[in-house]
Amino acid sequence: MGNCETLVVKSGGSGALTEWRCEFDRLAPELDVRDWDDPDVDPDAVSYALVWQPSPGRLAAFRHLRLIISAVAGVDHILADPDLPKHVPIMRMVTPETAERMADFVAMAALALIRQLPELMSAQRDGQWLAGLTGRIAADTTVGIMGLGRLGLHAALRLRAVGFRVAGWSRGRKIVQGVTTYAGPEDLPRFLAESQVLVNLLPDTSETAGIVNSKTIALLPAGASLINVGRGSHIVENALLDALDTHRLSNAIIDVHDVEPLAPSHAFWHHPRIIMTPHIASIASRASRAQLAASAIRAVREGKPVPFLFEPTRGY
Amino acid sequence: MGNCETLVVKSGGSGALTEWRCEFDRLAPELDVRDWDDPDVDPDAVSYALVWQPSPGRLAAFRHLRLIISAVAGVDHILADPDLPKHVPIMRMVTPETAERMADFVAMAALALIRQLPELMSAQRDGQWLAGLTGRIAADTTVGIMGLGRLGLHAALRLRAVGFRVAGWSRGRKIVQGVTTYAGPEDLPRFLAESQVLVNLLPDTSETAGIVNSKTIALLPAGASLINVGRGSHIVENALLDALDTHRLSNAIIDVHDVEPLAPSHAFWHHPRIIMTPHIASIASRASRAQLAASAIRAVREGKPVPFLFEPTRGY
Repeated sequence: MGNCETLVVKSGGSGALTEWRCEFDRLAPELDVRDWDDPDVDPDAVSYALVWQPSPGRLAAFRHLRLIISAVAGVDHILADPDLPKHVPIMRMVTPETAERMADFVAMAALALIRQLPELMSAQRDGQWLAGLTGRIAADTTVGIMGLGRLGLHAALRLRAVGFRVAGWSRGRKIVQGVTTYAGPEDLPRFLAESQVLVNLLPDTSETAGIVNSKTIALLPAGASLINVGRGSHIVENALLDALDTHRLSNAIIDVHDVEPLAPSHAFWHHPRIIMTPHIASIASRASRAQLAASAIRAVREGKPVPFLFEPTRGY
Repeated sequence: MGNCETLVVKSGGSGALTEWRCEFDRLAPELDVRDWDDPDVDPDAVSYALVWQPSPGRLAAFRHLRLIISAVAGVDHILADPDLPKHVPIMRMVTPETAERMADFVAMAALALIRQLPELMSAQRDGQWLAGLTGRIAADTTVGIMGLGRLGLHAALRLRAVGFRVAGWSRGRKIVQGVTTYAGPEDLPRFLAESQVLVNLLPDTSETAGIVNSKTIALLPAGASLINVGRGSHIVENALLDALDTHRLSNAIIDVHDVEPLAPSHAFWHHPRIIMTPHIASIASRASRAQLAASAIRAVREGKPVPFLFEPTRGY
């Protein structure tokens, strides 16, 4: 251990390794930073793995692995490995930049949807001048956020600053200044009835899968909008498409998808009232992620608590 | 005068007259509200005209006209009438909703441009998954606003609340909490050098025409973004298109245009890094505009000051 520890990196492809190395050379020069696919790596020397979608079975081969660092905020892409070494802690990548970027994105998305930007851009593409697409005012709109973790909370406060009314729903009740909060399944209908723009920022657990479905959509105000920045699995896609087609929902911005990249034949690519983005809502810079990873590695070495650890019983 | 006064309306077409009438019946039931093209109107009974793009010469025919009310914030569409009766005051339509809608739109536009939304939506249309389009953070970005009138000021404070650094430039110096302010031609280069997103909210005067040109664009930081919510005449369109093509500017959101509706052959319709909107940034609801118009008519009758009067010497 100590000065001969190896960090293997699988994030951004081999093209990104130079940038990761450059950052870690500055932050933790004693680390030996290697590509995930480097044939010369001694598996027994690997103490840390910074990964996105690790190939199944590979993490189990690192017998002295001390910490798995997710390259993104979610960890489902790691849990998908059936041979995942369960005793190794997993850190979620929740940098200050992650929360800041998510808040920027959610604020943009909420404003864009109430101002009918998907419709305006479809009209632009079709050469139609639709001066009647004036939308509504933020101050007269309630945005409901499902999920009041670190990211949801930051987004809620940002939406308040922008001028929206904000409601929040989470498993356990939270108190947030200026935000009407709801908790648990029994509060969900009342929360949904208020949410003219619904933001999904829930973690990926068995309880939350498919939570945006035809039943819950029917509880939203008519003509509501949807922002999905949680996980693709939270949304029943056909229910969303049906609700858009019947104008039960007005429009949507969808950043996360069941299969990424989205299949070329997927309906989201060309729907006139969906803005589809390629999972970029909260992705932090490599500099910012390397900084958090280096501080976590330092904590492991010094026997101190590692922040943002995945808790299996909680599901995130 | 008194109870037999007529208000003629030219705004939103004859289809909107029902809504205007309904609002004025509630707010000022003694007014006789008529369509601009109603052949039965006695020109001598017309005391007030609520107009957008009045046909040249028509206002001069109302010999007892006491107030011209612009249906929108700008008045250039009225000043274009060569026979405009110069002695009749003109009110600009600056409702509380106007400023609120403008602030919402500018906040949305600034966030959308730093997050490369035009590029993301071009990629969506082309079926390209470009996960590298991550843009930048609001907190690390300076938005520069040209024009610190009522709308500009409200937008500046909103952008601050969203998290941007904000700079402002106006003819005379203004002091605004949290905003770095500049004034006059001598400050313009320093202001532009800071403005990673430039927002044009200047009034339409001879001094400000063509102010966004190849020289001023060259003073912006490389890769800056542009939001035009002032007037089409403020922008030298070829300079904007050149700057986008050479990537001197990254992207733009353009809501106002020299000729509206925009000509079908205009380059803005299909440029992959321009979001073109049909002059909807700050258009207030008819309810909100009727309220301001009714209060102005009341002020005229009672000999009190009318708000938001156009001042010819100032140019807005």
